[in-house]
Amino acid sequence: MELPDGADGSAGVAYSDGALVPISQATISVLDWGFSHSDVTYDVVHVWKGAFFRLDDHLDRFERSCANLRLDPGLSRDGIRDVLFACVRASGLRDAYVEMLCTRGVPPPGSRDPRHVQNRFMAYAIPFVWVLDLARQDRGARLHLADVPRISAGSVDPTVKNFHWGDMTRALFQALDLGADTTVLVDADGYVTEGPGFNVFAVSDGAIVTPDTGVLEGVTRASVRELCEEAGIPFTMGKLHPQALLSADEVFLSSTAGGIMPVSYINNRVLGVGRPGPVATQLRARYWQRHEEGWHATPVDYGDA
Amino acid sequence: MELPDGADGSAGVAYSDGALVPISQATISVLDWGFSHSDVTYDVVHVWKGAFFRLDDHLDRFERSCANLRLDPGLSRDGIRDVLFACVRASGLRDAYVEMLCTRGVPPPGSRDPRHVQNRFMAYAIPFVWVLDLARQDRGARLHLADVPRISAGSVDPTVKNFHWGDMTRALFQALDLGADTTVLVDADGYVTEGPGFNVFAVSDGAIVTPDTGVLEGVTRASVRELCEEAGIPFTMGKLHPQALLSADEVFLSSTAGGIMPVSYINNRVLGVGRPGPVATQLRARYWQRHEEGWHATPVDYGDA
Repeated sequence: MELPDGADGSAGVAYSDGALVPISQATISVLDWGFSHSDVTYDVVHVWKGAFFRLDDHLDRFERSCANLRLDPGLSRDGIRDVLFACVRASGLRDAYVEMLCTRGVPPPGSRDPRHVQNRFMAYAIPFVWVLDLARQDRGARLHLADVPRISAGSVDPTVKNFHWGDMTRALFQALDLGADTTVLVDADGYVTEGPGFNVFAVSDGAIVTPDTGVLEGVTRASVRELCEEAGIPFTMGKLHPQALLSADEVFLSSTAGGIMPVSYINNRVLGVGRPGPVATQLRARYWQRHEEGWHATPVDYGDA
Repeated sequence: MELPDGADGSAGVAYSDGALVPISQATISVLDWGFSHSDVTYDVVHVWKGAFFRLDDHLDRFERSCANLRLDPGLSRDGIRDVLFACVRASGLRDAYVEMLCTRGVPPPGSRDPRHVQNRFMAYAIPFVWVLDLARQDRGARLHLADVPRISAGSVDPTVKNFHWGDMTRALFQALDLGADTTVLVDADGYVTEGPGFNVFAVSDGAIVTPDTGVLEGVTRASVRELCEEAGIPFTMGKLHPQALLSADEVFLSSTAGGIMPVSYINNRVLGVGRPGPVATQLRARYWQRHEEGWHATPVDYGDA
């Protein structure tokens, strides 16, 4: 699979309707329920210095998400894998944000029955995306605790990766208006959940706590856990109250789109000494160092590109 | 504004990037947050026998929805109106489902800030859509009370028309698997809210109750209210408990995509005599009769089409 002759893939390459196209041509119909009912799931894996990171973990989750929503991507796992490699190879990108997605599709005219629609698989590779840019990571992000409650897990299962971001977007506007960099939402019971595209972690007395329910089961969260095991840092998944976040020694975030990202302020209150703390700094450094060492890596063969 | 020479608009016509195109060419980028964050609002107005119905009510609501989400369609109200008329005229459709929508747009590469994105307005006209086809309306729909809770109004405001349908879709699968035609969801407190694309009404002892909060403020619901006033039928907006729905004399639904639609079964229990009751039948007939009389109508000038 290759781009058409003369096509420019440097801004990104997508797989759409069985062929590779420049990212600017990757579109879905306004009639696709993936758009008009947000009836879609997706996953994002990154490529760093020419290798996929934890590709099988992302493929596993994507398969579970599709099955949960009764979506059929119409490709085998190997077929999906081949498409992801083809997108990255054709883009030439050594550091990439690679998304696979499956939409419900365009229903037959007049139909309202989601059971009988041809689902649609797409994928694309674009330059690596940072939820928080490196300057913000170096100084530590400014986090805002939103008063918008997270969509409940009973209504939309957050472990099935989805585009229902209305609560996140509203909270993000609040945060940005107040001068913060990003936001974290609480659930209806008042416990901390997650933010737009990341899990959240509190460090207190050297031990780490991250919410166990009502959140995406992040692949980077799993990396944090493994790094903690390697370093002998206690790691627990459980309830996290906002007060525990506000009084933590350190707070950090994790995302495929950015890795492990320290927080220095919450609601304009200084956390610790107002810069990334030792645990977050250590984990962040180890996370990227382990990438250099080939941890969970699957290299891309770029051929002549 | 016209379709390009030779283009076929019979399946529908869309306005996209300042021009009219066949509906099959109406697409959005996979990078548009309107898709990937469901950061979008929309409204649907119908055309019946060559005239828009309650067009200003839909334009009013669309403007309120855009303002609420800080979306700028980039067109004046008159500009939007002109686009809607152009889509219908170019399609030649006398009975049409006409949608206007505004997405957040494609962010600059790497940006995660929704405040600085060029928003995108689109619109389209396609053949009239029935939430429930006429055969189901004639016999009365089979409704299923879902055990999936509606996304809470605190997380995503249901009065701002949105595509967060994950709860609706999950409930609809349940309903269809059980042999029902459609579904209605309850809120976290256990009260009836709405279904996928419609408001719901219970008739008991000749009086009508429909949920007051946690639902879309339906334009067809407003038509129901007006028809009730004309006919001297008591109409109340308030809390509606599932038990009140199950024990009602009649139940019906309302939607721009289908009008006033009787229900005959809930959870496989016969409602009344198992066919559309007198109040729903009367209101349904009056709703379409009033269309014939030019009620709330704005005719389309089709020119030579």
